[in-house]
Amino acid sequence: MLKDLPSLEQLIKALQHVPYLASKNIYRVGSYFLQLEPHKLAQFCEILLEAKRKVLACERCYTWREIDRDCTFCSSIKRDQTTVCVVESWQELIAIEKTGGYQGIYHVLGGVICPLDGVGPEDLTIQALVDRVDKEGIKEIILAMNQTPEGEATIAYIGRKLKDKAVLVSCLARGIPVGSHLESIDRLTVYKALSERRPF
Amino acid sequence: MLKDLPSLEQLIKALQHVPYLASKNIYRVGSYFLQLEPHKLAQFCEILLEAKRKVLACERCYTWREIDRDCTFCSSIKRDQTTVCVVESWQELIAIEKTGGYQGIYHVLGGVICPLDGVGPEDLTIQALVDRVDKEGIKEIILAMNQTPEGEATIAYIGRKLKDKAVLVSCLARGIPVGSHLESIDRLTVYKALSERRPF
Repeated sequence: MLKDLPSLEQLIKALQHVPYLASKNIYRVGSYFLQLEPHKLAQFCEILLEAKRKVLACERCYTWREIDRDCTFCSSIKRDQTTVCVVESWQELIAIEKTGGYQGIYHVLGGVICPLDGVGPEDLTIQALVDRVDKEGIKEIILAMNQTPEGEATIAYIGRKLKDKAVLVSCLARGIPVGSHLESIDRLTVYKALSERRPF
Repeated sequence: MLKDLPSLEQLIKALQHVPYLASKNIYRVGSYFLQLEPHKLAQFCEILLEAKRKVLACERCYTWREIDRDCTFCSSIKRDQTTVCVVESWQELIAIEKTGGYQGIYHVLGGVICPLDGVGPEDLTIQALVDRVDKEGIKEIILAMNQTPEGEATIAYIGRKLKDKAVLVSCLARGIPVGSHLESIDRLTVYKALSERRPF
């Protein structure tokens, strides 16, 4: 029925590329934009374009930074510049920052190795990470990938690359999430929690 | 940590108003827009603004129509112009169109009565619906609200408004969804399916 509504069809198609908008929700989101007052919609577009103009990836750690400011992490004297937490992308960095328990710096990979999606090591900032280890006197690399097959493959690849360097490489602990019951957790997680148990 | 990234903070705030983007996903969506090539982002904004310029609500049934075309439903000679399906919004209309089993026309309310959200009958197109019944020779009104307390309240309100008119008013059937097991359905639905049982 969109054939009579070419402009709306275009909008729906554009929204289909935005992550986290399931196909069912796209019609509601389309309606949301159509119902905005014209000046509000113009403002929304201006904010998008301004962010695109002013926000770029830090040349060292690849986190986002404003064009006229130094990188929050790389320029901080309060942060331990010898500990680097490697994350897939900015949203995982935010999850780690929210804990308030990490005082080192970061390295954003830009994804994970995933041959099925055509993403190889050369599409990520892995070589830049290796160069940082060589040049910056980094003492520890924490590989904070997501617990997915691709995340594990990326950990394995980076681990091999750093094997002969004088740097400590660690991964996030796997196990039972805080506050959850054993019976409601999948068996692979319980198995990992068991086999990677820690001394009391 | 967004305090060092004012343009990105603005973008995140703008995205917070878009429906269906949970707070966790917003950072990923923000990154998606920042990673688009500049001309792709400009194109996205142009599509948004063009849809806003060219798509408007039909003055009769309030479904979306293109500015230079007639309403798909109101102008159709194949559709039964005496049966009107009343829906909350465009996305419910699409759900009904997808069944392929409805050949009447529509009336989009623009929401449901919800005093807590400050939405009263006068904020919806209920009076316009009553006027249509008076003027257009409509034979049946199908109230296809969502099965929510607000949907039920809206059905009750419209039902009262149309009580003395010479028009058949009906609602969607309530019951067990096709393909599902009784044991996995909430007890209120099972109760409704039982009390509103149909002859074999």
